Amino acid sequence: MFLLVFPIFGQPAWRDEGLLELSRSPQAKLHPVPVRAVQLTGGFWTERQRITIERSIPTLLTLLEEHGVVDNFRRLGSATDYTPRRGPLYTDSDLYKWIEGAAWSLTSRPDPKLEATIDRLVDVILAAQQPDGYLNTYWVEERAGQRWQQQTSGHELYCLGHMIQGAIAYYRATGKRKLLDGSIRFVEYLLRDTGPGKQPLLTGHPELELALAELYRTTGDQRYLKLAGYLLSGVERERLKLRPSQLEYMFSGSPFTERTQFEGHAVRALYAATGAADYYLETGDPAYWKTLQTLWADLVNSKMFVTGGVGSRSSGESFGDAYELPNRQAYTESCAAIAGFLFNQRMLAATGDAKYTDVMERALYNGINSGMSLDGTLYCYRNPLSSGGEKIRNSWYDTCCCPPNLQRTFAALGGYFYSTSKNGLWVHFFDNSKLVWRLESGTGVQAEVKTGQPWTGQVEIVVSPAKAETFTLYVRIPSWSEKTTVSINGQPAEVKGTPNSYLPLRREWKAGDRVRVALDMEPRLLRANPRVPEDYGKVAVQRGPLVYCLEQEDQAGTQVFDAAMSLPAALVPEEKPELLGGITVLHHKGLTFGSPLESAPLYSTKELRPGTPAELTFVPYYVFHNRGPARMEVWVPAVAAPTASKDQPAR
Amino acid sequence: MFLLVFPIFGQPAWRDEGLLELSRSPQAKLHPVPVRAVQLTGGFWTERQRITIERSIPTLLTLLEEHGVVDNFRRLGSATDYTPRRGPLYTDSDLYKWIEGAAWSLTSRPDPKLEATIDRLVDVILAAQQPDGYLNTYWVEERAGQRWQQQTSGHELYCLGHMIQGAIAYYRATGKRKLLDGSIRFVEYLLRDTGPGKQPLLTGHPELELALAELYRTTGDQRYLKLAGYLLSGVERERLKLRPSQLEYMFSGSPFTERTQFEGHAVRALYAATGAADYYLETGDPAYWKTLQTLWADLVNSKMFVTGGVGSRSSGESFGDAYELPNRQAYTESCAAIAGFLFNQRMLAATGDAKYTDVMERALYNGINSGMSLDGTLYCYRNPLSSGGEKIRNSWYDTCCCPPNLQRTFAALGGYFYSTSKNGLWVHFFDNSKLVWRLESGTGVQAEVKTGQPWTGQVEIVVSPAKAETFTLYVRIPSWSEKTTVSINGQPAEVKGTPNSYLPLRREWKAGDRVRVALDMEPRLLRANPRVPEDYGKVAVQRGPLVYCLEQEDQAGTQVFDAAMSLPAALVPEEKPELLGGITVLHHKGLTFGSPLESAPLYSTKELRPGTPAELTFVPYYVFHNRGPARMEVWVPAVAAPTASKDQPAR
Repeated sequence: MFLLVFPIFGQPAWRDEGLLELSRSPQAKLHPVPVRAVQLTGGFWTERQRITIERSIPTLLTLLEEHGVVDNFRRLGSATDYTPRRGPLYTDSDLYKWIEGAAWSLTSRPDPKLEATIDRLVDVILAAQQPDGYLNTYWVEERAGQRWQQQTSGHELYCLGHMIQGAIAYYRATGKRKLLDGSIRFVEYLLRDTGPGKQPLLTGHPELELALAELYRTTGDQRYLKLAGYLLSGVERERLKLRPSQLEYMFSGSPFTERTQFEGHAVRALYAATGAADYYLETGDPAYWKTLQTLWADLVNSKMFVTGGVGSRSSGESFGDAYELPNRQAYTESCAAIAGFLFNQRMLAATGDAKYTDVMERALYNGINSGMSLDGTLYCYRNPLSSGGEKIRNSWYDTCCCPPNLQRTFAALGGYFYSTSKNGLWVHFFDNSKLVWRLESGTGVQAEVKTGQPWTGQVEIVVSPAKAETFTLYVRIPSWSEKTTVSINGQPAEVKGTPNSYLPLRREWKAGDRVRVALDMEPRLLRANPRVPEDYGKVAVQRGPLVYCLEQEDQAGTQVFDAAMSLPAALVPEEKPELLGGITVLHHKGLTFGSPLESAPLYSTKELRPGTPAELTFVPYYVFHNRGPARMEVWVPAVAAPTASKDQPAR
Repeated sequence: MFLLVFPIFGQPAWRDEGLLELSRSPQAKLHPVPVRAVQLTGGFWTERQRITIERSIPTLLTLLEEHGVVDNFRRLGSATDYTPRRGPLYTDSDLYKWIEGAAWSLTSRPDPKLEATIDRLVDVILAAQQPDGYLNTYWVEERAGQRWQQQTSGHELYCLGHMIQGAIAYYRATGKRKLLDGSIRFVEYLLRDTGPGKQPLLTGHPELELALAELYRTTGDQRYLKLAGYLLSGVERERLKLRPSQLEYMFSGSPFTERTQFEGHAVRALYAATGAADYYLETGDPAYWKTLQTLWADLVNSKMFVTGGVGSRSSGESFGDAYELPNRQAYTESCAAIAGFLFNQRMLAATGDAKYTDVMERALYNGINSGMSLDGTLYCYRNPLSSGGEKIRNSWYDTCCCPPNLQRTFAALGGYFYSTSKNGLWVHFFDNSKLVWRLESGTGVQAEVKTGQPWTGQVEIVVSPAKAETFTLYVRIPSWSEKTTVSINGQPAEVKGTPNSYLPLRREWKAGDRVRVALDMEPRLLRANPRVPEDYGKVAVQRGPLVYCLEQEDQAGTQVFDAAMSLPAALVPEEKPELLGGITVLHHKGLTFGSPLESAPLYSTKELRPGTPAELTFVPYYVFHNRGPARMEVWVPAVAAPTASKDQPAR
């Protein structure tokens, strides 16, 4: 009945390593499956991954070439005269991150031509490596004397971090160690010439911490983990004469375990927390765990947008105060949403707690997903929750951090969908996909998910162990699914799903066992804590994992910023297979203010209330600005429906 | 019955000149009275002026000395070795502005010792002037070769503008021309060596434009007005290779008449508009008038805080988008509120339209008044409308623009209270004061105002012309006084006051005629246009000209950010003569959320509504942060009072 294909054991370890290699991590409760063990089989994310691999990755390499990012390496490794180095001082990292995305794409979909391209790039990169192992295309030649002199802003260690991550991804995709060995040479140089008593080190932009933890996991060399701990320790604060404003902005340079809130540059802070979580997964240091939990609570209780976006201020690309979540001014860099996603990935691995998956999902489906256009060629750096129609999707940014960050996320998506633990198999995200892997008992297992998610609520999971075996299938019940029914082989499970938890289905599973989950797809109106100044009296619409918005193009005659929702709010879904790659829109009989608000005074004793009926149509947030710039709003005023005038004659 | 003292005619013109000398300005409908013609006689502003003159002005000079601002001049004019120049490149302007404030204070209250101090400072300043007339303590010596090379940020013309304004004030206060002549030497240098075909000029920080207009009015030399026109014309945009972002930020460098909205640095933009209004008052250029009206509408319809504060963003100290009025993040620099006040002063002079006075009053009583502490020694640079308890009142700022700007405003306050026009006498602001001046017919006139404003609504104006004469007394009816009754000598006037207008009382006035105005002091709840994201569903409390706020110290057990108003809202005034210099507080039986909002989730489908009774006490906004930093809020959520539970037993 089923044609089961099980992984062949005895292959080299690199084939078995997932996005993180946590199989020997003492604090890891959950263990990733290899990216290659998961095939996306024609659902929502299949299309996003296809466009990433077929359009985004190739076109971005062309742009990186056009902007000199690869030439920056070539000119150092060649006797030929090249034009001067181009671009900001951190462009090396963009190529490394592109390689990481391209490498993961090979595990999702092998492509010998792309692999050959990466091989050539690796040669170009390594030809630029200095004899001592140092590698950076900016801090060389006339700037060679300034090596390590501008660590707060120089991005030397940041670039190394991405080099390591790209190298590990390529190693796990192909078994090829060349780039990995090159990155190790750089790390060995650090271990030799820097550190306590020698040249002090600082991650002015944290990133290397998580890369070093993964390098430790890949090689087993504890010195790499120790180096990560040194960077997180803040011991060099005095020697480097760091100012408080720098410590805040960089989120490094002072002891990580003394942090009490997220502040400063959002990507820096969240990469630091991700690296610290990796460090905890390996060391179990309780001071780290306490800080990580404090920071996580600070994030989700007061500093995260409803799209999973992070970073309130353009100035410093930074976190704001608690509850400072301005929709139009939101910075919400794609990279920051991804960094928050990675942070929560580690927290989930440490605990198996669905509250972390919930944050990952919120970011992935909304504030990350919005970052790449539907055609895979335009990128958002900022992902605000309100737009006056400014153009924010662009094909190129001189600071090109977000595009390859989105690529590496989408190219490896399957690797985030499942985990294993001692007790069984975990299903985190529901999308059409097929897992071919093994339980931690060693028994081979397949799992196949069929669903219309995120548009419809039916999910079918067919579980097929190689032999009948008792284990737990952990099925995630999202926070938004208030009423969830679960059945196994047609029989309802003993326990109903509790929102925001994993439903543990423990039984003897045999090949072809079928779990059916009916998720609650009723549209939800979210309220923000009244402490959020901009969202008071307003609602955001969510259906399944998708946050919705009003975009001007869909409103017949109603100005988006004059629109309001009428409570109690009926929202009627309509499938639109031809629209924006196929979406479900939500129709609502809402309201507008009688006359355009733009013509009303700024201050008045008169309260303007929306009272004129208006047909409103919501679209998923992630598709905004895909038909050109347009006015857009996530948080919409909501008022009780006006009672019909008694004077009005009945018809 | 009345002891009438009338001005002696035939005195030099400087004694008759007001804050602006508009007597020959073709487009000036209203003409200022001399500052010295108005005495403050023991009301609200008398105390603010007293503290300005007795505490603020003397202590600030000490601080300017301590921080080297005066030494920056001394070192250039002396053979003695001084320490190197100190402070930012624009400190000269701070001393000039201090002189302007001190000079106006002499007209309000003569003080020979202070006058002697200014004389000495003038000598110190002029000793630093270059032989060619150039005067700036930064762009000299080793930087002399960079003169005019960094006009976008160099502040050379900005400092000259303040030199001229200080010089004119001192001239009008004392008749002494020394500083005035020094500033004219600098202007003559500009006319000789710069301009079209010569060194191009740019006000990287507009200010000189208004100073030149006033210099023209003071001297009658049209070349100075023409120079202002040149600076406003933007003709040097090409020669100076100005970028669009610079044109936006500086609000200069491109033709003023092509501006369509306020943007960029708020103080720069509003000084530019003030200078352009001065230019219009002299030239009548209709293109300027059209632009001024467009900008004014942009300001009051979408970019002004309810306190009259201006400038939404810290980044660039700048305007935001339309309706971008964040309360906590508001930049609202004291200087920007003052600049808006000055802009509206010119617009009022051109029209006699009360809508401009209304904006002046809103700023003066609230967003300007808050800028100086009650004891006159601490200053706000920012005047936000919400505070988490950050310390924002400081005695010193290295960029010391706001403190002397506040001083020059308060020291000359009487000069803003009255105007004359061809038809009669205008009363703009109601405070205990006595005007001794003349009508434009030449007939001497006195006016004495007695009132408890801004705390009580009764205003008595005793008008005493030297001889009985028919003229119009224009009594301003503020926008907030919805029901105003006016009586003359006990008889109701024919016309009731219409809010936001001048009530023209035309009759034959004779000495001792008594006008009684009863202003409507009913507390008002203001709503913002729903397009303002942070104010939706909230109200601001205003009573008379004063905007109120909740400050933590006055709330018994209720956290300010958990507080809400209960509608319909009763606000009960209580005079507190001992509190904060004597204020009227407003009591309100409001509400709080059941449990602290800080413990509530960030997003939820549940709407949290305030339902627990709470006694709230509002204090005037301008006194906030005078008892130390504390949480503060102007815009407060407002909900209909919860209906009493039906299950509750009747007692």
